[in-house]
Amino acid sequence: MTSWYLRACAQPHAEAAAAARQRQAQLTKPAGSLGRLETLAIELAGMQGRALPAVDAVWITVFAADHGVAAAGVSAYPQAVTGEMLRNFAHGGAAIAVLAAAQQAELEVVNLGVVNDPGELPGVRREIIAASTASFLSDAAMHDEQLEAALASGQRSVERARAGGAQLLICGEMGIGNTTSAAALGCALLAESPEHLSGRGTGVDDAGLRRKIEAIRKALDFHAGAHDAREWLRRLGGFELAAMTGAYIAAAQQRLPILVDGFVTTAAALAAVKIQPSVRPWLLFSHRSQEAGHARLLAAMDAQPLLDLGLRLGEASGAATALPLLRLACALHANMATFAEAGVSEA
Amino acid sequence: MTSWYLRACAQPHAEAAAAARQRQAQLTKPAGSLGRLETLAIELAGMQGRALPAVDAVWITVFAADHGVAAAGVSAYPQAVTGEMLRNFAHGGAAIAVLAAAQQAELEVVNLGVVNDPGELPGVRREIIAASTASFLSDAAMHDEQLEAALASGQRSVERARAGGAQLLICGEMGIGNTTSAAALGCALLAESPEHLSGRGTGVDDAGLRRKIEAIRKALDFHAGAHDAREWLRRLGGFELAAMTGAYIAAAQQRLPILVDGFVTTAAALAAVKIQPSVRPWLLFSHRSQEAGHARLLAAMDAQPLLDLGLRLGEASGAATALPLLRLACALHANMATFAEAGVSEA
Repeated sequence: MTSWYLRACAQPHAEAAAAARQRQAQLTKPAGSLGRLETLAIELAGMQGRALPAVDAVWITVFAADHGVAAAGVSAYPQAVTGEMLRNFAHGGAAIAVLAAAQQAELEVVNLGVVNDPGELPGVRREIIAASTASFLSDAAMHDEQLEAALASGQRSVERARAGGAQLLICGEMGIGNTTSAAALGCALLAESPEHLSGRGTGVDDAGLRRKIEAIRKALDFHAGAHDAREWLRRLGGFELAAMTGAYIAAAQQRLPILVDGFVTTAAALAAVKIQPSVRPWLLFSHRSQEAGHARLLAAMDAQPLLDLGLRLGEASGAATALPLLRLACALHANMATFAEAGVSEA
Repeated sequence: MTSWYLRACAQPHAEAAAAARQRQAQLTKPAGSLGRLETLAIELAGMQGRALPAVDAVWITVFAADHGVAAAGVSAYPQAVTGEMLRNFAHGGAAIAVLAAAQQAELEVVNLGVVNDPGELPGVRREIIAASTASFLSDAAMHDEQLEAALASGQRSVERARAGGAQLLICGEMGIGNTTSAAALGCALLAESPEHLSGRGTGVDDAGLRRKIEAIRKALDFHAGAHDAREWLRRLGGFELAAMTGAYIAAAQQRLPILVDGFVTTAAALAAVKIQPSVRPWLLFSHRSQEAGHARLLAAMDAQPLLDLGLRLGEASGAATALPLLRLACALHANMATFAEAGVSEA
């Protein structure tokens, strides 16, 4: 039996996109003068299969997990922070909690396994795979069953999003050490060198950055025998990375538009596209982060992000910050008058 | 007696900005990881004189006026559109009307004089100066009294904004031919050549663009005797441009933060800064428009716009599109937990 994540996705509806494009040409503005706000409405129309798209109902899932590689001193923060932040998500004090509340977006958090486990928390699902991945310096990060569990966790988040009536999916992540995992995965998927995809993450100093690059180089050597995207994800990824990859594939299979966040989520999206290329048309990209290497991951998917504000927090915070642009694009598209309706002369 | 617009503005509150900066450093995120969203909150704190700024109450004034230079065939649209669009603003079908309604921002429109006058309309103030400016190809665009009237109209819009409790001012414009006026004014203020500041506006073809550049060149020759910013504004500006210049100066004098829109508004902001340099710290810049020349006007004020989405509509549409970023910056700043509150370990 073919694994669920290998099933191809449909293309967006060409007719709905064409109807939206035609409507844009009739609205009271010079043709093209709303730039990316016009193309966003057209792309969303294609994905949602209707000429007047909407993103009122937005589902945000933040996946949290710990990483064996954190022991190599690649982060500016102690590993305990992953679990501590679960509590901060639950209590509404984290950036993504504030951004979701400000915009009436549904936020759920999935604990896939953290070293400093806070236990049951309101709004946090426990789907524990293990306390952390293994260190990919000397082992595969995940066994095969662990990878499957993480991918399936992402798939289930999409089921919940759809059951909740979501019109857009946003995934985010929390995991000390995960920019190292994402950079290693990106290097493997794109045959890039560690220097090009490694950045300062939460803010490591020069020595930390050198340790990070060295760790990735060592991992790429150790895992040189792998040769497909799923296997790279298993060996170098994390539970939250794999869950996002699974969520992106499942959302695209179910015609749910996706707004991708920053560096780590883009690495997960790249893995999704490498596993199943038909995912690509379902991805919108929210921002170019300050993390060195993000621009290369974006370029590999020919992605044009909406924002460039020097963000590098993760948690889906960049995607949530770009959400108003999608909503305003839909409002303009639906509510502006046409030249005929308004009695305005054309060019 | 010194004219009101020559009075210097206060500087933003250094103490409030410092308090906001200190708070940002304590919030549960790596220092600096929210990039421009952090500096926006800090800048707004300084302007509003409080550590926790807010931009819930937003005032948008769109000034509409016609231009004598339109007769030179510099626009893709007939001059009648300025008046027709007044009706579209009033009826809620224009882009800015949709954007304002979607965000509960107060929108007022001021008719300063249009050739195709629609008369009384709900939500449109009549402050008619003349049916249009004179053509600056062979005359000054405005008499001295007309310039003063336009500047004063802008000042009065700020009085209304303050009376309405506004925490942020946005100005927009509508006027067929006004990118030609704005480009001419920018050339004069910056000693730039017409090729560098002229763009396609609402979408003129190559021949139209050549006519536009030629008109500006002719105007700069004809008005070569002028030598201060107010005089350039009088000779080359428009009623709506001068009104926005007046509004920006008045807002800065009254400590009201300003979010600047696109090419034409940036030319008005440049005139304001040239007339009264202490206006500059009160300006936030919303976007870099697709109009050729906008980047040069922005660079002349060392402005870092928030968005770059290929917009070129005017009407304050770019500023209204960037408004959610200011609101989210304030929400994050006010509502995120500190490390101490959340019990999260620091770096």
